[in-house]
Amino acid sequence: MDYKVADLSLAEYGRKELSLAEHEMPGLMAMRERYGKDQPLKGARIAGSLHMTIQTGVLIETLTALGADVRWATCNIFSTQDHAAAAVVVGEGTPEDPKGTPVFAWKGETLAEYWDEAEKVFQFTDAEGNQVGPNMLLDDGGDITMLLHKGVEFEKAGEVPGQDSTDNEEFKEVLRVLDRSLKNDPTYWTNVAGGIKGVTEETTTGVLRLYDRYKEGSLLFPAINVNDSVTKSKFDNKYGCRHSLIDGINRATDVMIGGKVAVVCGYGDVGKGSAESLRGQGARVIVTEIDPICALQAAMDGYEVRRLESVVETADIFITTTGNFDIIRVEHFEKMKNQAIVGNIGHFDNEINMAGLAKIPGIVKDEIKPQVHQWIFPDGKKVIVLSEGRLLNLGNATGHPSFVMSNSFTNQTLAQIELFTKLEEYPIGVYVLPKALDEEVARLHLDALGVELTELKQEQADYLGVPVEGPYKSDQYRY
Amino acid sequence: MDYKVADLSLAEYGRKELSLAEHEMPGLMAMRERYGKDQPLKGARIAGSLHMTIQTGVLIETLTALGADVRWATCNIFSTQDHAAAAVVVGEGTPEDPKGTPVFAWKGETLAEYWDEAEKVFQFTDAEGNQVGPNMLLDDGGDITMLLHKGVEFEKAGEVPGQDSTDNEEFKEVLRVLDRSLKNDPTYWTNVAGGIKGVTEETTTGVLRLYDRYKEGSLLFPAINVNDSVTKSKFDNKYGCRHSLIDGINRATDVMIGGKVAVVCGYGDVGKGSAESLRGQGARVIVTEIDPICALQAAMDGYEVRRLESVVETADIFITTTGNFDIIRVEHFEKMKNQAIVGNIGHFDNEINMAGLAKIPGIVKDEIKPQVHQWIFPDGKKVIVLSEGRLLNLGNATGHPSFVMSNSFTNQTLAQIELFTKLEEYPIGVYVLPKALDEEVARLHLDALGVELTELKQEQADYLGVPVEGPYKSDQYRY
Amino acid sequence: MDYKVADLSLAEYGRKELSLAEHEMPGLMAMRERYGKDQPLKGARIAGSLHMTIQTGVLIETLTALGADVRWATCNIFSTQDHAAAAVVVGEGTPEDPKGTPVFAWKGETLAEYWDEAEKVFQFTDAEGNQVGPNMLLDDGGDITMLLHKGVEFEKAGEVPGQDSTDNEEFKEVLRVLDRSLKNDPTYWTNVAGGIKGVTEETTTGVLRLYDRYKEGSLLFPAINVNDSVTKSKFDNKYGCRHSLIDGINRATDVMIGGKVAVVCGYGDVGKGSAESLRGQGARVIVTEIDPICALQAAMDGYEVRRLESVVETADIFITTTGNFDIIRVEHFEKMKNQAIVGNIGHFDNEINMAGLAKIPGIVKDEIKPQVHQWIFPDGKKVIVLSEGRLLNLGNATGHPSFVMSNSFTNQTLAQIELFTKLEEYPIGVYVLPKALDEEVARLHLDALGVELTELKQEQADYLGVPVEGPYKSDQYRY
Amino acid sequence: MDYKVADLSLAEYGRKELSLAEHEMPGLMAMRERYGKDQPLKGARIAGSLHMTIQTGVLIETLTALGADVRWATCNIFSTQDHAAAAVVVGEGTPEDPKGTPVFAWKGETLAEYWDEAEKVFQFTDAEGNQVGPNMLLDDGGDITMLLHKGVEFEKAGEVPGQDSTDNEEFKEVLRVLDRSLKNDPTYWTNVAGGIKGVTEETTTGVLRLYDRYKEGSLLFPAINVNDSVTKSKFDNKYGCRHSLIDGINRATDVMIGGKVAVVCGYGDVGKGSAESLRGQGARVIVTEIDPICALQAAMDGYEVRRLESVVETADIFITTTGNFDIIRVEHFEKMKNQAIVGNIGHFDNEINMAGLAKIPGIVKDEIKPQVHQWIFPDGKKVIVLSEGRLLNLGNATGHPSFVMSNSFTNQTLAQIELFTKLEEYPIGVYVLPKALDEEVARLHLDALGVELTELKQEQADYLGVPVEGPYKSDQYRY
Repeated sequence: MDYKVADLSLAEYGRKELSLAEHEMPGLMAMRERYGKDQPLKGARIAGSLHMTIQTGVLIETLTALGADVRWATCNIFSTQDHAAAAVVVGEGTPEDPKGTPVFAWKGETLAEYWDEAEKVFQFTDAEGNQVGPNMLLDDGGDITMLLHKGVEFEKAGEVPGQDSTDNEEFKEVLRVLDRSLKNDPTYWTNVAGGIKGVTEETTTGVLRLYDRYKEGSLLFPAINVNDSVTKSKFDNKYGCRHSLIDGINRATDVMIGGKVAVVCGYGDVGKGSAESLRGQGARVIVTEIDPICALQAAMDGYEVRRLESVVETADIFITTTGNFDIIRVEHFEKMKNQAIVGNIGHFDNEINMAGLAKIPGIVKDEIKPQVHQWIFPDGKKVIVLSEGRLLNLGNATGHPSFVMSNSFTNQTLAQIELFTKLEEYPIGVYVLPKALDEEVARLHLDALGVELTELKQEQADYLGVPVEGPYKSDQYRY
Repeated sequence: MDYKVADLSLAEYGRKELSLAEHEMPGLMAMRERYGKDQPLKGARIAGSLHMTIQTGVLIETLTALGADVRWATCNIFSTQDHAAAAVVVGEGTPEDPKGTPVFAWKGETLAEYWDEAEKVFQFTDAEGNQVGPNMLLDDGGDITMLLHKGVEFEKAGEVPGQDSTDNEEFKEVLRVLDRSLKNDPTYWTNVAGGIKGVTEETTTGVLRLYDRYKEGSLLFPAINVNDSVTKSKFDNKYGCRHSLIDGINRATDVMIGGKVAVVCGYGDVGKGSAESLRGQGARVIVTEIDPICALQAAMDGYEVRRLESVVETADIFITTTGNFDIIRVEHFEKMKNQAIVGNIGHFDNEINMAGLAKIPGIVKDEIKPQVHQWIFPDGKKVIVLSEGRLLNLGNATGHPSFVMSNSFTNQTLAQIELFTKLEEYPIGVYVLPKALDEEVARLHLDALGVELTELKQEQADYLGVPVEGPYKSDQYRY
Repeated sequence: MDYKVADLSLAEYGRKELSLAEHEMPGLMAMRERYGKDQPLKGARIAGSLHMTIQTGVLIETLTALGADVRWATCNIFSTQDHAAAAVVVGEGTPEDPKGTPVFAWKGETLAEYWDEAEKVFQFTDAEGNQVGPNMLLDDGGDITMLLHKGVEFEKAGEVPGQDSTDNEEFKEVLRVLDRSLKNDPTYWTNVAGGIKGVTEETTTGVLRLYDRYKEGSLLFPAINVNDSVTKSKFDNKYGCRHSLIDGINRATDVMIGGKVAVVCGYGDVGKGSAESLRGQGARVIVTEIDPICALQAAMDGYEVRRLESVVETADIFITTTGNFDIIRVEHFEKMKNQAIVGNIGHFDNEINMAGLAKIPGIVKDEIKPQVHQWIFPDGKKVIVLSEGRLLNLGNATGHPSFVMSNSFTNQTLAQIELFTKLEEYPIGVYVLPKALDEEVARLHLDALGVELTELKQEQADYLGVPVEGPYKSDQYRY
Repeated sequence: MDYKVADLSLAEYGRKELSLAEHEMPGLMAMRERYGKDQPLKGARIAGSLHMTIQTGVLIETLTALGADVRWATCNIFSTQDHAAAAVVVGEGTPEDPKGTPVFAWKGETLAEYWDEAEKVFQFTDAEGNQVGPNMLLDDGGDITMLLHKGVEFEKAGEVPGQDSTDNEEFKEVLRVLDRSLKNDPTYWTNVAGGIKGVTEETTTGVLRLYDRYKEGSLLFPAINVNDSVTKSKFDNKYGCRHSLIDGINRATDVMIGGKVAVVCGYGDVGKGSAESLRGQGARVIVTEIDPICALQAAMDGYEVRRLESVVETADIFITTTGNFDIIRVEHFEKMKNQAIVGNIGHFDNEINMAGLAKIPGIVKDEIKPQVHQWIFPDGKKVIVLSEGRLLNLGNATGHPSFVMSNSFTNQTLAQIELFTKLEEYPIGVYVLPKALDEEVARLHLDALGVELTELKQEQADYLGVPVEGPYKSDQYRY
């Protein structure tokens, strides 16, 4: 076996958890049942990069159940659940004779390891045993999409910039990997890109990168924006974070949230779910916002809306949800109370200026337990930072729960089928799934919650001017 | 004075309420301050049809403060606040010498009166004292837009269909008015339509009618859909109903909502606000839905989602919010508990089959007080119906509160200015306001709530790819 | 007819409302059904003083249905619902030939009228037509109990102090009435007191006075403290105020509560219900407290806990719930924002220093509508005061809803029966109802809410050491 | 060292957690500061039995900081946090040279080990190195109190019943330990009991046993019921469970709670906190109750109240909070849905009939991970049981958070001081702490939450008839 799994002995536990998760992912199980026979992904070679959790395991096995050949890496160095990775690798086999899907991920990779593993998801072998590239990408955050596009760009330029050309520690590793590849095969990435039908992308950040690339004309293949399906953005982002934010804080700190003052930076879907999560535990939540509409929503929802500067000295918990960078800065850390807790559930770790924190003269970083550090200031004040500023719900807990991921991942699966089987309908561009599919994803999750859906009478459908079976809303509808 | 006000002695009380409401409508007051000098609506003759409440009074006086000449009717026979109408008519004058705006509305009009009054908003007089039509429409539900379009259609046809051609009691009145007009001046409506620059429309129902007309090619002038501004649909519909639903039920019935089982039909913005309104009082809320996405939202928000048939026998309160028709039907009324309460906060009174209710053999309609009736079944069971099935928050209470209407009406004012001053940018079609204006509306309401808005740093704006001053979100963003 | 009703023509409307309220007061209706035949109050002459609302009407008619002879006054000059008073007076008769219960109350009495009417509830006539006193008191706040005790005290002293002896405007009226009585019959109150079996008292304030009187040895007869029945204090105070606080604010001001900052002074049961009431509408609630335990509860429930001084300049709504006096003072009024709203739902109007407010130099009191005044400061700032500082839920709305009052009033009815029929078990003192009766009150209200109660198995009851049928908790249990 | 710690290498991690917890336990830290100098517990030998968590660690070190000599066992075989035990043992020393407090507890003890360790907390050594008994007990659930009382009883009888005399597996172990002791020293427990000044008891169950013993005349020394301090029962039980219930479910199952139907059996303080915990995550909560008052509260709080039988087939999560036994029975297990989750947060594991479950023919118990088992029925249906039916918040998470335990444990500390120093004021009986101390406990926790407490003016205190500095409420007040 040429791929790495942290610990194959975890596989059995992982298989049990996979089995439990299947019950909580009715959308994916319905996909298997509905499409398993037709094998719509037969011939698809999917390179995936997405947090390697139990839920992702059910996604991967759904893709393979629909005929796909899959290779997988994580999109975050801390978020892998090793037992999930092990279980997926083993599949129907045994640790000694695994029959599952190659996974290149473990909890606590270095950045160098991360990008080395990312490269491996492109290295398929065809039936004849030849090395061959993927024909589909499934991405979360856009890292493998970026790797491929940068590879093509540098091959076109004939050289990879030196690592000195960037201050970004992570991008140095990208350059290292691509430089090695260029030296090995100067048309490698160009060849791979030529075989790609398209990419389906999971998150806001990745989607923004795709739209940018499309606008500047450098997008190499069509993309489906899964993030903006209603059943993703309004469910995963909001209800997923409602669940996993306090779960992460609890597991990391065991601190009582009730009675505390928590600042949620940003009141988008993630912020809305986060604020509700903390309020549901009895915290008093203060929101920061830059968008007047979202700020007004927060106020109408009963939250105090302040600038971070105004409340940094008195709050107990700080959570970033913005998708922007440099939200919590050194000037803020310096004013926080002793044992203030700081975490990020937005996207990148740069929402919190971790680099700046580390540079405060005399500061000491002390590990309480993995992913939980107290930063001890020279005057003895401690600030507790979760998951080193990376996604705390993944680093300190187990990420979003299966049920909400079932929504996102059913969208992913439908998007993969859509691009793989109807490519002609998708010239290069960035698309969202048709509303009928979005509604279908929701529909597949209702039974599990005991929901009775009312059916329109024909006259009522006519009155609204919609089909009885939907879709029911315009594309502009905001839910 | 040739226009009717129910009771001029109400004017003084109305002026006081107007003054209080101005404080709660910071958006409109900011419009007056910002644009009062430039008089951007100078020359506008606005025919308005919208619930004649105190808040509408502040809107009307904002339009006139910006230079417009205005005539006003209501869009609902029960919703007029007579003191508001009186105050607007009197304006800066006295009941004996009113200097305000003509208003053709009083609480409890008949359908015949309603359509007679609707016709009057078109009858402006120019500086020379000549009869002249409006050049702008401001509509809520589309009644005056419909009257005008039907007028043009029948004039083209050369005749108005007989009243026997319809079963709809209300449309009979429309036909009566248009027939009288055709006999009087066979090109009246055609001439009026020719002078109209455009219409701004307040609600879902009116907007749907506009889109339909646009699709079938019969729309006569451009329209701005104010309903779908975020600061309208997500505020007026949701937070407005959160306020006014229980207010209406309380004033109508004085019944304890806590502990009761309330069914909310529909989980759109109005349904979301209604469910929150009832839950905030301790009711157990059950939602009915036809759209799987909204149904899933309701479930994730902790509501039971059932078909009406499944719960009609045990629930205490039934509220329709759908914008569809025939939601609560005779078959439901027959199964309800004694003293069940039924009301509508959606749009038209046909959400509840009032006609069918009245036809149940042996049923007696007994007025408890105005807008509150108990329908007594032959077996003695009573069902309490609010506002005869029309909008209960307007019929039984005072409608949405000023603050939320300030959002909607600032959108209306901006839309009137937009169409009146930049007509060339708006060929016939249905438009929403640019997002920058939407955000501006929100911004004008933050100070009143003590909200501190965070400002993006230039680097952060660049990171997101948005201007520092906004707009911040794509048009697809769902809030 | 020698007693006053504001407007007999209101009786018909009142009878309809009574009929509707009966459905919402299952506890009282169960009392009628269960005890109507046995007439346990046969021979009781009950002098009652309690807000004369529709709900009280159902109470009065329950007492008479159980055999009592009743005379009634209100305990608050603003809280009477005239149609309720009229309906009770008329009873089964007609306005011309009333057959109901004498009621001495109308909305908007003067203080002088109030105490004149209070005296009349003592003036029963027996079967032979002789003047005779009551043998039971039913009190809310202790006014008629105080009148009687003071009467006895002054008769013992042989004289009533002059009105100059007090600054309290209200107590001057008490002295006037008692002086008149003393001159008329110097042993009147002593005779009346001799015939009283006991009093049942509804509220905290009245109960405190009873305990004080008991401690100082001046209590003349036994008293049952209905206020501290769980089904009273935890229901009426909390859930009743949750309902009626926002109802009062809405009817008085039509102001949007969502998004506003509301200060609730006090976090006892009334404060808890009030805070929940406002939060349920999307207000941001700040609590003030003097008791560290209640303050900690408020914090754990997610509320900000501050001193009034710290937030008076920024809050929008101020509600007193303390049962103490001088909570909102001139120094606070002077710092409030323009159009701040101030109201009391605690008990007496002295929670707000109305007298001090009126004495601010240059201030103008302007009535917007009955029970809603704007106090205009010399600089033009307005503060809106509800119900002149008296109970806003009664003055601006219709008080607690029937269902919650059914709990309180079923306790009242049981307490009247208890004292009237088992006097020997109650030597002079202040008592609460036995827990079994408290549980019974709750039990009588469950069916109406569709509650299924679980029944203990005998082994489970034995395990807990309680009877299968209850009572289930110790007297110390806090619920 | 003659006492067992699972793993001394955990001590360092434990010391860090202790240090963090101290910040979250302001009440205990204030006790150290206030009383550290006076050493009020000097001479106290405290035998403690209470879940050996980090928070208990801070309690133990507070007791020793006040002068006490302490020995500690757990009161639950699964709830020990081994790093907490290790840290307390090590104290200021090192793993090699521990200077802390003897602890006899580790996670996952057998029942035999549990009772062997319980016996050891009685085995103090005095300054001269002689074996000596404790003079104070600190108990949670009453196990060591029971061991001591049973020991005395059997010594009086001269023999210990055979293990065959009971079906209860746990009581067999008690009999074994006492039999061994009797054979070793027939007056051992009698001697120990003679030296005990009193016991302070933490929970409902233990308190009930004490009252029973007191009523039957067998209580050997005075007891302070800490459970019924307001700052315990209304904080630990309610807010602690609000925190730790979902924490336990999340860590055990990673299942999304939002959208699910959860049944909470019992609506006492634990049930109230549990229901709020689940609702805060978006679950739809159904309550079962036997007490009509609590049932009515649940209904007024917006919960559906049903019998378990009525909903067992459709709910997803079942939580017992009753303090009673045999709540979830075989007949219920058999009707549950596949992957239903069952857990207990009440007190003993007999709330769920685990023994009955294990006896279902053909059922298989499969461990997913420690404290999480799926019970696989013959037809393949799985039911997931948390912590084998014992307290899931302790077994699956880390118990109540420090802040809430600081309230309970400050009560414990005050109660120990009270009994140890003022024994003469406490003849044999069961007492609650004076209200002034209860308020003091609350007061010590306000600063940490940023609460500003309002101070009564002297006139206001006089008006209420309370001292300015409290206590403010009667003993009957329910909060």
